[in-house]
Amino acid sequence: MRSVAATIDAEAEERAFPLAATAELLRPSVLRGILELSARRDVISFGVGVPGTDLLPRQLVAALAAEVLHAGALPLQYGMPSALLKEQIVALMAARGVACRPEQVFLTNGAQQAMDLLTRLLLDPGGELLLEETIYDGIQLAVRPLRPKIRTLPSEPGTGLDPLAVEEALHRGARPAFLYLIPEGHNPMGSSLPLRAREHMVELARTHHFPILEDDTYGFLQYGPRPRPAMASLDGEQVIYLGSASKILAPGLRMGWIVAPEALIPALSTLKHGTDIDSTTFGHALVAAFLARGALTDHLALLRTAYHARRDAMLAALAERLGSAARWTVPESGFFVWAELREGLDSLELLRHAVASEGVAFSPGHAFATAGGDRAFRGLRLSFASVPEDAIGEGIARLGRAIASVRSEPVEVAQERPRP
Amino acid sequence: MRSVAATIDAEAEERAFPLAATAELLRPSVLRGILELSARRDVISFGVGVPGTDLLPRQLVAALAAEVLHAGALPLQYGMPSALLKEQIVALMAARGVACRPEQVFLTNGAQQAMDLLTRLLLDPGGELLLEETIYDGIQLAVRPLRPKIRTLPSEPGTGLDPLAVEEALHRGARPAFLYLIPEGHNPMGSSLPLRAREHMVELARTHHFPILEDDTYGFLQYGPRPRPAMASLDGEQVIYLGSASKILAPGLRMGWIVAPEALIPALSTLKHGTDIDSTTFGHALVAAFLARGALTDHLALLRTAYHARRDAMLAALAERLGSAARWTVPESGFFVWAELREGLDSLELLRHAVASEGVAFSPGHAFATAGGDRAFRGLRLSFASVPEDAIGEGIARLGRAIASVRSEPVEVAQERPRP
Repeated sequence: MRSVAATIDAEAEERAFPLAATAELLRPSVLRGILELSARRDVISFGVGVPGTDLLPRQLVAALAAEVLHAGALPLQYGMPSALLKEQIVALMAARGVACRPEQVFLTNGAQQAMDLLTRLLLDPGGELLLEETIYDGIQLAVRPLRPKIRTLPSEPGTGLDPLAVEEALHRGARPAFLYLIPEGHNPMGSSLPLRAREHMVELARTHHFPILEDDTYGFLQYGPRPRPAMASLDGEQVIYLGSASKILAPGLRMGWIVAPEALIPALSTLKHGTDIDSTTFGHALVAAFLARGALTDHLALLRTAYHARRDAMLAALAERLGSAARWTVPESGFFVWAELREGLDSLELLRHAVASEGVAFSPGHAFATAGGDRAFRGLRLSFASVPEDAIGEGIARLGRAIASVRSEPVEVAQERPRP
Repeated sequence: MRSVAATIDAEAEERAFPLAATAELLRPSVLRGILELSARRDVISFGVGVPGTDLLPRQLVAALAAEVLHAGALPLQYGMPSALLKEQIVALMAARGVACRPEQVFLTNGAQQAMDLLTRLLLDPGGELLLEETIYDGIQLAVRPLRPKIRTLPSEPGTGLDPLAVEEALHRGARPAFLYLIPEGHNPMGSSLPLRAREHMVELARTHHFPILEDDTYGFLQYGPRPRPAMASLDGEQVIYLGSASKILAPGLRMGWIVAPEALIPALSTLKHGTDIDSTTFGHALVAAFLARGALTDHLALLRTAYHARRDAMLAALAERLGSAARWTVPESGFFVWAELREGLDSLELLRHAVASEGVAFSPGHAFATAGGDRAFRGLRLSFASVPEDAIGEGIARLGRAIASVRSEPVEVAQERPRP
């Protein structure tokens, strides 16, 4: 498969007009390819971080669609951001330990749009960023068009980014436009940031005058008995919160939100107007109707139980099938187990073999690597959320066979190891 | 009211972190304020370019929501762009005289997102653009963060942009990244570009190697007996087509599309992934179901009849109430009558008076001015689409009284004339 850049180069002569220089940077996301790949019926896919389709409340959403459209056609019209929804988000934030006002709430087309808008608000072209070596590819795609100067920082599976690494970078002169963190259910490493690390990071942000972008997409999906509050509860001025209904209700409704200092809201509003005019009115009306019914509490309990059981099924299967071939984390929240292969195996190479020979897929660490590095290339992100509990064991058994078969030909694998 | 820039300056000292330099440019859109203003119940608003709420097919959409969710939960899940919808768009394009393949179709979150993505694909930071003096503010918001060097070109009510003005700019050395045009139902001037001007513009684009972005949002809403085909029918390589379901079905579903040379689609896809991951799955599923039923033909006939009648009601009322105070265009497509005040009256000043004293609103030309200019400041964009036929006469009567009352105090008005 040719890269987009190569395609663009090859066809530039016959094309009728030039593209922006930025177009060179628009390599397709590895994850998009996996989304296509894992759509094959015979593949068990741990590859994409999507909620279980069986857990999407389609009957309730259908009832709510009838309800909101019976009341009138305004959910199909352009509209101002829903005041009701902002009030409801304030209540949701209280459940995450964050006190805020509706004037601080900004509604978005999912958390990804929040990343795009906040990047454009905070980052100058060519500006500076600190970013983990292994981090959600969506934030990488959001910042790439502005061509930032990125310093990468290592993260530990289990505990995430080490604040001492941040501190050292700052002392060596880093002046980041912001620090993006996923304190709960880290994507892809599944880690939860310890409280002490959160406090240290907020202290650094205050001292060095940069905002923390807290991506709390998985914050409502914690599996322990005492859920940790959001990082924004430590400092509502320094920490900008990004929330999403995609994992706790339905991605297809495209509802996310930002909680930020009120002074930033008008600029975000103008940015969004130029981006896609305004909210996905109908989707947002459905989320508001869902919350107005008080349906979220029961639905979250259902999700936590189901995902907790899927996580445990995956951990049990990993212990049975992969014992000696890899090590992995035990996530306390979110969708992801992060496994690291031993003996220098490459996870992208393994993926090709696993899909073709065994019919199992996952996300290779390469998809999340900001600067290469052995850790990313040995890593597998295994999402347990969208695979039914009874298929998880079979999927991990296939993965175990794929690893065993690749390990038996280590020399060839090493020779063919790709460097994307 | 303080500007956002002033607010940002004033609060910079107390804020915990700096913003990108671009944040200075994020003045709120004049149109956003009007959207808020005209929500008052006692105001008859010709201000916003939105479809009639009474014409949104809410019962059919409710039935389709039940239908698509009965079949499964995939419309609520993340998903690849709908292959069915792309096929349907190919058929819609044929109705606009454009031959294309599904591989050239890119689905967006409305036409505004198409502008944002294409801008980022084609325009380098600080690059060059040609833009009409009076043009849709959405394209201005889309390009502003990249701080382009803009040369403005005059347009004539009725016939739009003069290709000779484009040619002259090109001969004086302009090298635009693209030329944005609204050949049908121009926003805000209501004009339709004559065929000869379209041909001339495409010829210039070929010779000088720049793409034309054809915003055809209103192309399906032509009121004459022989609808003109889209400009993209003249040259599918040089003209990139932007379509929208917002005016012909419902804005709340956020469905728009691009038809472009196939080589550009992967880069657009990567850009969109970083912007908001992917399509508004549910909204797009509803549009696809609507089209699959063959419901668009009848619905378009209904819309054309209704909007035609509203246009004629507005033209009749203008002739009766504003005869000597202004001149206006007769639009052959779209939502907008463009009126220009005589005697140097300022339309923004008139708006304030008209809302406060008479309860009628419109969009002042200032909202669309790329570089000031007398024409924009004397202009009123009057949208007839969202006002029921029987209220249009009363609204224009109020506007006539507002103008008469402002004209009686010309000196004061001139002194207080704002320069935004």
